[in-house]
Amino acid sequence: MNSPVLLIDTPDEKGLIHTITGVIYHNNHNIICNNEYVDHETSRFFMRTEIEGECDTETLTEELKNRLPEGCRIRFASQRRRKIVVMASKEHHCLGDLLIRNSYNELNADILCVISNHDLLRQLTERFDIPFHYVPVEKLTKEEHEVKVLEILNKYSPEYIVLAKYMRILTPGFISSFPAKIINIHHSFLPAFIGANPYRQAFERGVKIIGATAHFVTEELDEGPIIAQSVIPVNHTYSANDMVLAGRDVEKNVLAKALQLVFQERVFLCGKRVVIF
Amino acid sequence: MNSPVLLIDTPDEKGLIHTITGVIYHNNHNIICNNEYVDHETSRFFMRTEIEGECDTETLTEELKNRLPEGCRIRFASQRRRKIVVMASKEHHCLGDLLIRNSYNELNADILCVISNHDLLRQLTERFDIPFHYVPVEKLTKEEHEVKVLEILNKYSPEYIVLAKYMRILTPGFISSFPAKIINIHHSFLPAFIGANPYRQAFERGVKIIGATAHFVTEELDEGPIIAQSVIPVNHTYSANDMVLAGRDVEKNVLAKALQLVFQERVFLCGKRVVIF
Amino acid sequence: MNSPVLLIDTPDEKGLIHTITGVIYHNNHNIICNNEYVDHETSRFFMRTEIEGECDTETLTEELKNRLPEGCRIRFASQRRRKIVVMASKEHHCLGDLLIRNSYNELNADILCVISNHDLLRQLTERFDIPFHYVPVEKLTKEEHEVKVLEILNKYSPEYIVLAKYMRILTPGFISSFPAKIINIHHSFLPAFIGANPYRQAFERGVKIIGATAHFVTEELDEGPIIAQSVIPVNHTYSANDMVLAGRDVEKNVLAKALQLVFQERVFLCGKRVVIF
Amino acid sequence: MNSPVLLIDTPDEKGLIHTITGVIYHNNHNIICNNEYVDHETSRFFMRTEIEGECDTETLTEELKNRLPEGCRIRFASQRRRKIVVMASKEHHCLGDLLIRNSYNELNADILCVISNHDLLRQLTERFDIPFHYVPVEKLTKEEHEVKVLEILNKYSPEYIVLAKYMRILTPGFISSFPAKIINIHHSFLPAFIGANPYRQAFERGVKIIGATAHFVTEELDEGPIIAQSVIPVNHTYSANDMVLAGRDVEKNVLAKALQLVFQERVFLCGKRVVIF
Repeated sequence: MNSPVLLIDTPDEKGLIHTITGVIYHNNHNIICNNEYVDHETSRFFMRTEIEGECDTETLTEELKNRLPEGCRIRFASQRRRKIVVMASKEHHCLGDLLIRNSYNELNADILCVISNHDLLRQLTERFDIPFHYVPVEKLTKEEHEVKVLEILNKYSPEYIVLAKYMRILTPGFISSFPAKIINIHHSFLPAFIGANPYRQAFERGVKIIGATAHFVTEELDEGPIIAQSVIPVNHTYSANDMVLAGRDVEKNVLAKALQLVFQERVFLCGKRVVIF
Repeated sequence: MNSPVLLIDTPDEKGLIHTITGVIYHNNHNIICNNEYVDHETSRFFMRTEIEGECDTETLTEELKNRLPEGCRIRFASQRRRKIVVMASKEHHCLGDLLIRNSYNELNADILCVISNHDLLRQLTERFDIPFHYVPVEKLTKEEHEVKVLEILNKYSPEYIVLAKYMRILTPGFISSFPAKIINIHHSFLPAFIGANPYRQAFERGVKIIGATAHFVTEELDEGPIIAQSVIPVNHTYSANDMVLAGRDVEKNVLAKALQLVFQERVFLCGKRVVIF
Repeated sequence: MNSPVLLIDTPDEKGLIHTITGVIYHNNHNIICNNEYVDHETSRFFMRTEIEGECDTETLTEELKNRLPEGCRIRFASQRRRKIVVMASKEHHCLGDLLIRNSYNELNADILCVISNHDLLRQLTERFDIPFHYVPVEKLTKEEHEVKVLEILNKYSPEYIVLAKYMRILTPGFISSFPAKIINIHHSFLPAFIGANPYRQAFERGVKIIGATAHFVTEELDEGPIIAQSVIPVNHTYSANDMVLAGRDVEKNVLAKALQLVFQERVFLCGKRVVIF
Repeated sequence: MNSPVLLIDTPDEKGLIHTITGVIYHNNHNIICNNEYVDHETSRFFMRTEIEGECDTETLTEELKNRLPEGCRIRFASQRRRKIVVMASKEHHCLGDLLIRNSYNELNADILCVISNHDLLRQLTERFDIPFHYVPVEKLTKEEHEVKVLEILNKYSPEYIVLAKYMRILTPGFISSFPAKIINIHHSFLPAFIGANPYRQAFERGVKIIGATAHFVTEELDEGPIIAQSVIPVNHTYSANDMVLAGRDVEKNVLAKALQLVFQERVFLCGKRVVIF
């Protein structure tokens, strides 16, 4: 993915595709790949366009702004890899998977550091020469702990924060500092089994399928817009702990898939839902 | 499936498999297929045994009862097809699928009649020469309506009642008359989206996967033991109505699968969960 | 789906989207839904556009033809339901599913008649008031049999022929009379298990997943462009016959899905592959 | 899994379960989990029994041998982790996944070393403190190269060899030295796309689903008994290379799943198929 990506999100009106592609065409650019969608609930039009070669994004943005409706959002996605910080607690599977993908440049992102409320994942992280910051919670209020986490985050200035099985609930204040920039993996097929111990809940309910959900974090617990979900079958022979083990592969794959979609600029927020191209 | 099926559900203790297979062996029978499972939550042992040829089920039951722990349940499943009544409302897809399977003897059951609170599915049902009973709800309380339904049910004495998109909530009184004998298809991946309009709920939550759940009906709405579940992927281009249409194929397949499992005597109740062999 | 659908398939060049949407816009039409794709293997551009309301398709076609590259194909899909003939042999599951969908207008098509080389599916077909034509093969060469089938087909002039488990191999001559107009369901995950008895082959190979494939029929057996595929898990307890039974639900769903895609004009041929919007 | 596992594979006869569980019961052992299966193609009976606590496996084996039919195979699986060697070529995803699982003791195995015909995966391997042996192929015949590989293998005496995207075809001589002890991941849904470049083949055939297959290696290329398979959907927008990337997650998960099954002693060979408990 080396071509610039034009991202437009605007109130719908007749002729938008013609107008937008006109600006691109008259500036002598070729479109490699184009997707558009009108959301009928919100009457907003979404378009993602990969343009061949380099282009003067300022000129194009200016021209587009002049021709598109009030309330449009126009953005050119940079081709740099995103800068991200990963937060995790005790479980290694999502973090380990991200570290390997990161070391082979498969994420369209660079992991700047790992932050954890436990010291268990230090060795794994450091095997990949990534800084590991242990921020213990002992004797701290939730807010005090977050202040310490924020200090580290501020040092790195990440574009996204990835919660790779970070098991503490963040405060609304923390979340609102990173709007649509925190991505979490929840170990259930949301909205089933919100909150703690979803596999235990799943076991007790006797479900025949379990899953995982990657979503943007908003102030409501486990209620943020869903980016990706996946499931696997289980049966009566699975204990709650067997479900935990079986769920790991789903969790890590769903998180990686969601990150790829977001970091390739394929995801638009649309109220509580997302549009994915 | 022509061999008798022995179904045992008993408090666990050492040597059960040896004891049970001993009774079968000493009565000179061969086992075609055997499954057993110990549920560690309840310490109960479950076993399903297909026996070759005919056997004197009374003698075997007697001998088994003498050797198994207090609290055991021993049952030989008859080889007759189950007698069932299907209840439906307006949607044809589950009923239509069952009628075709029934007409080719694929259900291990015979549909005795169809009962509906609407008159819409009469033609479909009668195409297959199955009696259709329309019980309108107008001017009736829920209880009065159920009395009329029960009158019809009593005439047919079904072994199971299948709710093939029957959209009225049954009263606890009705349900308790048919313990573990009513099977429902719910149009969501339970426990997500309990209650009305699950596809609308799914659309609004922006889920990426929708599903269906076949379960035994208990007095708590949508809380009965789950027999089968299945899912399909959806995306942002699906309206709530598109999800309804896409969900139909999942619903009919999950319901048919659950019925096959139950009617082949592969399903044991185990608290709020089921054991499926 | 009541809006006219514009289908364009043309050699790729810069500015195509702008040009095409310009013709639509200057004729004062609104686009409801648009998809486009460039196939890099063949350098062809594909576009499918749903237009709001009625439109003068002749004028639009003329204008488009004047502006698009040599070699373009422009077509407006009519909003009528397609006229189809279903051919089947002995198995009822695909035919039964299509008959029910047909009777509720779910196919975007009307089944004109059913043709079979056996007389087994007559009752099922006639339950739905669809003409059934039995064309026995006894004492006929393959070509003679096809002549009799063609006589019936000519009487009905279908736009598509659906092979719903029609188990005779058609001659190249027959197939070439209906280019890209015959859709078949093959009971394996092609290209695995081409030819006869795929479930037996699958059993012997010990596969852990079985599937079904809906494809356009071309002169090479089981080699036509694939429209849809689906799979289900199996295990060592499945006999070849169990696979046959389990495969039925996959077959009927995949066939129905492929027909929906084709009859909604979402499928473009692109060499040996298809583009699906 | 700390309990001893008894594995029996014997010609079928009446009373086998009773006989075997009798030996266990009379030696005063409790069965935690039991599975059995009769393969009707070969008339062989398979049984896997987890026994609670420690047991005198020699005595039990002796007693069982005296009571079971000629041709029976009786084995107690040791509770040690298996010793394995991983062979890989250039791709890191399967190896990386195994190294992480290994470092957290999730494989029921210990990776003794990695052998490769390239020097590319050295850093990844050594991050996890596992010896890496580079055996270049330049100027060597296939046999000469294998001699060098065998020298290393002999030094480690692994119980299993895992081909984690090792892209050279092994000679029959090499394979026959490790009967049913070499496990390979093939990057297609076998038997579709045997041999080289399966994703290219899949792209050209226009399939809508791609997959991966873990299997025992036998002398016939890609024809060994299948242990596990999995698939993912693809569509016309996937190039052959996109399929390669998308296939990676399937490959690594299927390989890991197959290894877990084998290393937990859940897999019996049964001709060209496997029985999995």
